[in-house]
Amino acid sequence: MTDNKEETIVALATPNGIGAIGVIRLSGPDAITIAQRVWKGKDLTKQASHTLHFGRIVDGDIELDEVVASLFVAPRSYTRENVVEISCHGSNYIIESIIKLLIKNGARAAKAGEFTLRAFLNGQLDLSQAEAVADLIASNSKASQQIALQQLRGGFSNQLQQLREQLVQFASLIELELDFAEEDVEFANRDQLKKLTHEITRVIGSLIQSFELGNAIKNGVNTVIAGRPNAGKSTLLNALLNEERAIVSHIPGTTRDTIEEVLNIQGINFRLIDTAGIREATDTIEQIGVQRTMEKISQSALLIYVYDAEQITLANLNSDIESLQKPGITMLLVANKADLLNQEQLLALPHTDKAIIVSAKEKRHIDKLKNKIYTAAIKEQLSGHETLVTNIRHLEALQKTEEALIRVLSGIDTVTSDFLSMDIKQALHYLGEITGVVTTDDLLENIFSKFCIGK
Amino acid sequence: MTDNKEETIVALATPNGIGAIGVIRLSGPDAITIAQRVWKGKDLTKQASHTLHFGRIVDGDIELDEVVASLFVAPRSYTRENVVEISCHGSNYIIESIIKLLIKNGARAAKAGEFTLRAFLNGQLDLSQAEAVADLIASNSKASQQIALQQLRGGFSNQLQQLREQLVQFASLIELELDFAEEDVEFANRDQLKKLTHEITRVIGSLIQSFELGNAIKNGVNTVIAGRPNAGKSTLLNALLNEERAIVSHIPGTTRDTIEEVLNIQGINFRLIDTAGIREATDTIEQIGVQRTMEKISQSALLIYVYDAEQITLANLNSDIESLQKPGITMLLVANKADLLNQEQLLALPHTDKAIIVSAKEKRHIDKLKNKIYTAAIKEQLSGHETLVTNIRHLEALQKTEEALIRVLSGIDTVTSDFLSMDIKQALHYLGEITGVVTTDDLLENIFSKFCIGK
Repeated sequence: MTDNKEETIVALATPNGIGAIGVIRLSGPDAITIAQRVWKGKDLTKQASHTLHFGRIVDGDIELDEVVASLFVAPRSYTRENVVEISCHGSNYIIESIIKLLIKNGARAAKAGEFTLRAFLNGQLDLSQAEAVADLIASNSKASQQIALQQLRGGFSNQLQQLREQLVQFASLIELELDFAEEDVEFANRDQLKKLTHEITRVIGSLIQSFELGNAIKNGVNTVIAGRPNAGKSTLLNALLNEERAIVSHIPGTTRDTIEEVLNIQGINFRLIDTAGIREATDTIEQIGVQRTMEKISQSALLIYVYDAEQITLANLNSDIESLQKPGITMLLVANKADLLNQEQLLALPHTDKAIIVSAKEKRHIDKLKNKIYTAAIKEQLSGHETLVTNIRHLEALQKTEEALIRVLSGIDTVTSDFLSMDIKQALHYLGEITGVVTTDDLLENIFSKFCIGK
Repeated sequence: MTDNKEETIVALATPNGIGAIGVIRLSGPDAITIAQRVWKGKDLTKQASHTLHFGRIVDGDIELDEVVASLFVAPRSYTRENVVEISCHGSNYIIESIIKLLIKNGARAAKAGEFTLRAFLNGQLDLSQAEAVADLIASNSKASQQIALQQLRGGFSNQLQQLREQLVQFASLIELELDFAEEDVEFANRDQLKKLTHEITRVIGSLIQSFELGNAIKNGVNTVIAGRPNAGKSTLLNALLNEERAIVSHIPGTTRDTIEEVLNIQGINFRLIDTAGIREATDTIEQIGVQRTMEKISQSALLIYVYDAEQITLANLNSDIESLQKPGITMLLVANKADLLNQEQLLALPHTDKAIIVSAKEKRHIDKLKNKIYTAAIKEQLSGHETLVTNIRHLEALQKTEEALIRVLSGIDTVTSDFLSMDIKQALHYLGEITGVVTTDDLLENIFSKFCIGK
């Protein structure tokens, strides 16, 4: 991704649409002088960084708007370049006119993600932090926002950086061996290298493992609610959704699912997946398109199996459990219609050790169920993961790093320094791609073109 | 409209939707202290006005976002109150979380237009200027933006203020007469009052007259293109629209008409009105639903009559012109298909003094036609109007003022001071309503409830 940093770029930083104000962002060496050319008010080129100025945007004699300009003088800005943010009235006509005027006066329309690209190129953010900015903007739950913010703050980067530094040290020792190849010396202690590589591989493996959860947290946990007809699935769904609708549901355009199907528990979005097949069944689960249901379940992280505690037979219950269970998917048993049972009957229920006994109709124990959902899907999976990988690009780079490290491990006692060095360098390369120590134009293009314009 | 100015209000000032940043606006006596409660960074309560600060929004231990806060210390702000604008990442989840957090910490969700209402109540803007803010946000052409901006800058208000001051002076002289009623003296010279009232009535009348044009400029000039089948209407339409599409057409949601029907000439939007009835006619204009066409024409300010210069007979041409002409509507004659005529034929065309000769197909003289459209609809109507009234509320107030002034004029020689005083006061009342010297809760409610939230 070529980016001529001599150019000053401009774009609308706020969404299109009706609003009180719009913010136009200019960044580059000439940001302040270009703004000054269309400015009526105090001389912007003579003002201190981090100051606000009321003034007018003028095109010759024609006044476009009364605005407030925010001044950030390099390097004290998001991009580390001179930045001017013009806060104007939120008319699309005015916004477009001002942007056109700034372009006429020397700025260039920014490409998607170009401000953040510059922040990266100028060393303000590393690559995984830059990606976190996009994640933060896309975040729609507390969990996804927290993960993105942690990544933006460099938590993930620091961890990778430490691993990398240790490897780099070894790599240089091995390089040294190559320089003295004819003398057959070992500067790099093979046992220490083995131990270190084992340790790094373990950490990388753990990061790779965390992706499933990280991805679920970022994009929502796919959750199937299944059960026989009249088990009370819809009532349970309503009881669950009743008070705790996902925050995103209030705002149009933030969720692609229907509102009814996103449940937010402790900041995590659970995407409740429709199993109409089961709902419309008339007899047993086995009879109705088990295949379709099984497909949905296999795409999920969590299965909530609801049954009518009053009506179901132990045989049917056990057969349902058996037929629905899949490896790798957590199953919660929910015994519904507790309101129809007396104390004695409740105590006699099967699977009381595992089942959560609720009354969807009377909204009893729904909070307990929510806690169980959260615990099963998130809390129990979290153990041992301080950092969660949420980005598929990072996952792939980590997997490639792991492969290279496994080659290092398997060759450590058998191959020569030059082969070892190659594998270590590969591991370093892929690890470096995550934070952008190593980059290619394609990689940058691929990352930043997915950003919105103005960021 | 009650507004407790002790309360600090908060709202999103930028549009909902996907964008790089969102701006949350806080205004009121506690704006800075409330922001400080959720702030990690430099102490905002100790910073100077018009400064920018990087920091974090925190809810206890939980960090919501990295943001930039803009500080405006009273009275140096839009509302003349303390104002903090928080520029955060453009995630709806984050925006909503921050607003909720600010509300939890003492702010109240702002009602539509409440920031501008406060600007009015605190004397920052008069009422017509406050209305201009909404007009500016809604502006979708250079002309509507220029009118709104002029009104925001107080051009209209100043003019009204001058008229009002002159009247107030007379009103007080007449009041004086009432105090000395028993002595039968005249402090207010009746001839001078007559002259002044005449003059004010003339100005008010001119402002009332300007509404038609002002409204057309603000909302677009309704323009009918009519003509016989095969006159080249569609080709002309395309030629007109070809290069100069209204700027609004690039942005979804800014125009309610289809894109094809808005033509922007010199900053004015012309709303081209479909006359399908004429288009599908097979014989003469008289035969096809003349009534429907006439209705559309009567709703328009401008009629562009296109005819095939090669084919049409003089008799048909004259009969079309006669049947289409309506009082109060400007008609432009456009002789199309000039490319089919030689020099001699062109010179022999009828109505060469009035008709604009074009070739829609070859796009010849289209610019000339546009100039004529602009001149006929706008420039010629502008004469004598420095200020254009664009707001129907202002129009109604001006009309009521005029009525009261006419009563003053008719009674000046015949009625007693107390009646005269009453009429003058009424004129003053209505004149005052425009700028908000005189207001009622209903009036304010009516005006500001139409604003968007966050303004």
